[in-house]
Amino acid sequence: MRLRVDVLPRSDQDRGFQPFADTVLIVDTLRATTTAVTYLEQGAESLYLCPDLETALAFKGEGVILAGERNCLAPEGFDLGNSPVQALERRFDQHTVVMSTTNGTLAAVTAAETGKNIILASLRNAHAAARKARELATEEIAVLCAGSSGRIGLEDVYTAGVLCEYFISMTECSLDDGAQIALTVRRQFADPLEPLSKSRAAEKISQVGLESDIAYAAEVSRSTVVPMLVGRSGAALIFKG
Amino acid sequence: MRLRVDVLPRSDQDRGFQPFADTVLIVDTLRATTTAVTYLEQGAESLYLCPDLETALAFKGEGVILAGERNCLAPEGFDLGNSPVQALERRFDQHTVVMSTTNGTLAAVTAAETGKNIILASLRNAHAAARKARELATEEIAVLCAGSSGRIGLEDVYTAGVLCEYFISMTECSLDDGAQIALTVRRQFADPLEPLSKSRAAEKISQVGLESDIAYAAEVSRSTVVPMLVGRSGAALIFKG
Repeated sequence: MRLRVDVLPRSDQDRGFQPFADTVLIVDTLRATTTAVTYLEQGAESLYLCPDLETALAFKGEGVILAGERNCLAPEGFDLGNSPVQALERRFDQHTVVMSTTNGTLAAVTAAETGKNIILASLRNAHAAARKARELATEEIAVLCAGSSGRIGLEDVYTAGVLCEYFISMTECSLDDGAQIALTVRRQFADPLEPLSKSRAAEKISQVGLESDIAYAAEVSRSTVVPMLVGRSGAALIFKG
Repeated sequence: MRLRVDVLPRSDQDRGFQPFADTVLIVDTLRATTTAVTYLEQGAESLYLCPDLETALAFKGEGVILAGERNCLAPEGFDLGNSPVQALERRFDQHTVVMSTTNGTLAAVTAAETGKNIILASLRNAHAAARKARELATEEIAVLCAGSSGRIGLEDVYTAGVLCEYFISMTECSLDDGAQIALTVRRQFADPLEPLSKSRAAEKISQVGLESDIAYAAEVSRSTVVPMLVGRSGAALIFKG
């Protein structure tokens, strides 16, 4: 099995863009993929991931919760921001959560252009997500780190390393340079809270008073919910757990 | 001092592109920046770095050595490939070496669009390059890793980590996520030959029988030559030691 880690999303217009051949895990640890897992745990029927806020707003209506993020907070017209801890405060049964965030949802949309199986992964569902990817993949498992506005994120590379560690314990893998770097970062930090706290993303989240999201996102393999891409509605990707 | 590591080149059309505010060290350990240092050590008067082979070929003439690389070897019409060990076989006194390679020269051209001071760095000149950057920079030192055709390179992130270690020993620095990752990678490997040998770039170089370039590139701070951007000739960047 080829194991590939993309430390940043790249579009097909970028130099050296390599399409995803097979199974892709999208990682946006702080916080989109962590929050996505939480919505499904809290009963949401499905998740719509939208490339931009306008696409998300167009789904407004009965049974729909709009969750959006710009500069770490909920934009105007949205019911919720992107905080997993705030998502724990209520149930979402019989509701669809429609999400649009700065980095994570865009990474998912990019991956879905070429990948066969698209999975949302975070530290919280890392083991379950790795097992699901292993089950589905036939030739390549790719981890796509969302990063922050085009810059590499320590928290995402760390999570990619945790996923890679699971993969190499499950099957024989050839590692690309990105996977080797991710494993190195994972092995350097015994406590996941350390790399998450040291990231630029954590700094921004702390500035708006949502530090509790960081500790929550740093808990490893607490959830067995694995959001998988099951369909599309216009420009939105539909995920179910 | 802000310390920033870009693990891949980005152009101003890329999402989240951040211009270089100040001093930039270009790193293409295997092999362009290693070879560039060697040409100057071997007497070359100046180095021209060209964005493509056509630009390089246009400089053909008296006193000019054309050095180019595609798929690790010299393209047709070029005097030399991109091998530092082969560069050791002769002197280049009174000659200009005109280079075009797949990743390194392109990274330099990208950085020169916005950066104030552009320096070529490799493991071989790491300490001297770091000192020069420290001397010139007033607010930000950026390390730009060339990578391989748009993919992150273990060898370049390792070299960036070695440079960062010098910087933090010289002055107080704030580290971005890229710098933290590079330092982590640097600290994981006691022997520089290990990360270089494990990189995809090394695999490709070995396939064409140039393994000795890898061991040569892995020698740390053996050279005090620091190529600096001093001017332009058309689309070519002119570096002197």
